[in-house]
Amino acid sequence: MFSPRFEQLVQALRTLPSVGPKSAQRMALHLVMKNREGAFQLAHALHEAATYIQSCHVCHSLSEDEICEICASPRRDDTVLCVVESPADVMAIEQSAGFNGKYYVLGGHLSPLDGIGPEEIGIPALIQRLKQGQVQEVILATNATIEGQATAHYILEACKTLPVSMTRIAQGVPQGGELEYVDSHTLSQALHHRMQLK
Amino acid sequence: MFSPRFEQLVQALRTLPSVGPKSAQRMALHLVMKNREGAFQLAHALHEAATYIQSCHVCHSLSEDEICEICASPRRDDTVLCVVESPADVMAIEQSAGFNGKYYVLGGHLSPLDGIGPEEIGIPALIQRLKQGQVQEVILATNATIEGQATAHYILEACKTLPVSMTRIAQGVPQGGELEYVDSHTLSQALHHRMQLK
Repeated sequence: MFSPRFEQLVQALRTLPSVGPKSAQRMALHLVMKNREGAFQLAHALHEAATYIQSCHVCHSLSEDEICEICASPRRDDTVLCVVESPADVMAIEQSAGFNGKYYVLGGHLSPLDGIGPEEIGIPALIQRLKQGQVQEVILATNATIEGQATAHYILEACKTLPVSMTRIAQGVPQGGELEYVDSHTLSQALHHRMQLK
Repeated sequence: MFSPRFEQLVQALRTLPSVGPKSAQRMALHLVMKNREGAFQLAHALHEAATYIQSCHVCHSLSEDEICEICASPRRDDTVLCVVESPADVMAIEQSAGFNGKYYVLGGHLSPLDGIGPEEIGIPALIQRLKQGQVQEVILATNATIEGQATAHYILEACKTLPVSMTRIAQGVPQGGELEYVDSHTLSQALHHRMQLK
């Protein structure tokens, strides 16, 4: 279609998540016909991000420096460590504004069939960090999926002998949830972990 | 979040059509964490496309050269000219593989309220081309919207005195369409323009 360079742009756009051939074509046409300045800006932003963004050496979240802003901040509570699967989870929790501690990003979950064991998701390094004694509470905030639950369970077992309080984020009915439409596992969890009101 | 460069990438991705803040975040995370090579490739493809793709001097479709492949091709029928609104329409018709003539891209439709008159969509230049005498049939393939219909009607009137056959793409029930769910205007058009079978 049109030209090899247009075709290359469509192909490159298709590597974005949930962009199919039709959307990629529409995006390419939009950029070439209506927003050429935007195309140059996006090219620049991609180049900069892919060149300068790295993994934080302490928490393995994303950062432009060796140590990310959260890890470097003296205003964040050093004694509470929230363990999550990915930087996207850090982003989600930060946007909820309900947490002022520090993070530890596993970069995935245990998945023996794919060859992803404790080493691959940095659990030994996490235990090393806990042994330094500064952290008093670990919040296991892996996903509420089977893999996330298994990973949380593994970390709990591995930290059994350490003098650290271990907690798990609550499971229950989400805000706006109608009981009629909530799945039965969630509902049974919500009943089991019911909160004392008075 | 994370770093200024990550934020810039998210903002730049949001300029793509139908990409909201959540999708842009997901795309940026995907590129930075899982497909950095893809990020460089996309940056390169964007830069190349935005630098080298131009408008064909003959048909106003997209091209890397002054004259696009279709206009330059000796295998395409010079006597049939298909008038469309945008390069996306050229693409759609080419993919249908039902046409072997040449194109003329208006680059929009008549819209007096937005200051878009016949000059802005190249109708005088189209009439000049038809006056050269090579084209024997003009297929008006503007969209079947009110604006597209009005534009087709205007071109029809403007070419009244030229010795050129003017046709309009058929309107009717689309492939797979069930009469029950087809809108009444389409259905009345389909009945009105019914085809003789025997």
